[in-house]
Amino acid sequence: MVLTENDKLILITNDDGLYAAGLQRLISIMSDFGKLMVISATESRSAMSQALTVKHPLRVKLLEEDDGKRIYACSGTPTDGVKLAVNQLLERRPDLIVSGINHGSNASASVLYSGTMAAALEGCLYKITSVGFSLNSYSPTADFSVCDRYIRQICTLLMKEPLPEGICLNVNIPAIPAEEIKGMMVARQALGSWQEEFEKRKDPAGKTYYWLTGRFMNHEPEASDTDDWAIQNGYVAVVPVTTDMTAHGYLSTLKSKL
Amino acid sequence: MVLTENDKLILITNDDGLYAAGLQRLISIMSDFGKLMVISATESRSAMSQALTVKHPLRVKLLEEDDGKRIYACSGTPTDGVKLAVNQLLERRPDLIVSGINHGSNASASVLYSGTMAAALEGCLYKITSVGFSLNSYSPTADFSVCDRYIRQICTLLMKEPLPEGICLNVNIPAIPAEEIKGMMVARQALGSWQEEFEKRKDPAGKTYYWLTGRFMNHEPEASDTDDWAIQNGYVAVVPVTTDMTAHGYLSTLKSKL
Repeated sequence: MVLTENDKLILITNDDGLYAAGLQRLISIMSDFGKLMVISATESRSAMSQALTVKHPLRVKLLEEDDGKRIYACSGTPTDGVKLAVNQLLERRPDLIVSGINHGSNASASVLYSGTMAAALEGCLYKITSVGFSLNSYSPTADFSVCDRYIRQICTLLMKEPLPEGICLNVNIPAIPAEEIKGMMVARQALGSWQEEFEKRKDPAGKTYYWLTGRFMNHEPEASDTDDWAIQNGYVAVVPVTTDMTAHGYLSTLKSKL
Repeated sequence: MVLTENDKLILITNDDGLYAAGLQRLISIMSDFGKLMVISATESRSAMSQALTVKHPLRVKLLEEDDGKRIYACSGTPTDGVKLAVNQLLERRPDLIVSGINHGSNASASVLYSGTMAAALEGCLYKITSVGFSLNSYSPTADFSVCDRYIRQICTLLMKEPLPEGICLNVNIPAIPAEEIKGMMVARQALGSWQEEFEKRKDPAGKTYYWLTGRFMNHEPEASDTDDWAIQNGYVAVVPVTTDMTAHGYLSTLKSKL
């Protein structure tokens, strides 16, 4: 892949691994936007949040290259992949970082655990316009074609109008037929959490171990301005996400207490 | 450890592992506040962010128990440990979750990568008042005694006045002699990021690998209301941190574009 000055350069990653259908769909869509640099793990790295690999060395392998794209396998987390791409592998900064398409919703509190959204947040910290896309289905054979139109629309906008520093987009798409989607809705992150249950099992040696399971609970299901409400009601939810985790509204109260 | 109705119950965790000096100091301080449940990994799990273990089973081992505390080793991340403690190991919800004392600052963008702060954020999602403490020194033999007074003061307040839902505290303490600390300062998260450098090396087989290194850069070093400014200027920085990552101030602009 030869990168000329006029070429747009898009960095693509995900947390479901290089062979996930969602990533393959994203590569296909984004090839219309510029030259692609793809980096991900060969295996799924879901729920890695913004974890970094600091105790082990990182390995990178160029798997495939043609005129339009280079595909790298990376041994680390999605955040490691973005760091390596921007700092070591790319000849220049990408114009856009696109992460996904995640298999499963990253609405509400899932943004905190998501490796897909962590990659977009990492892009923010590099001051590169970044967006994460997720389809609300965990099925490995889900129909990702429903995402095309919205990914094209959002990425066309972002290539023209970069996001402000420190803000990326978290886009969640309902897994319903395209004609049933009512459009895009700018939303806030729903107040919600995962209700954890663990499966307690015995291994063949009789020792106890736990599997994390659980289900998401929206704590404000009636509020119609949230991302979870949007995807449950047939809208594509678009949340602007900030890297600033300060609870600004509580600063003055806290000052009065300390 | 027998837990009576009158006992306060404190959950303690960290990301530097059970044998870290910062955790040992925290256990010693918090033993004056109630009965303690300690859960952490035997090895450091730094920079794990809010990662979850979903592809491997979790193991837990009761290492030590006396009248005042129980100490568990957990094979997972700090967030896994909080989930296991709250869902499986504790007979009732803790009155407070205290994470740390971290070896090294978690000010500014480090809050996004920190396993210590992830444990506090996880506490938030369970609606349990939670706080993370960090000392601004990576030395394993740093003098953690400087933290005592501030940890006592903050935890005394939190036991009396729980935090609002969805907000925890990120407390960073300068690693300077106690008498040089000017007091506590409520602050916002500084705009900053890690400037990554990778060390590119060859393994004995001649293959390339990378070590993540890097240093923190405060992008607004002159702003005197930030956590990084506070610890650089002799104050204990106290940031209220929210689990809501919505960029609320950008919602209306984004609506006008989409």
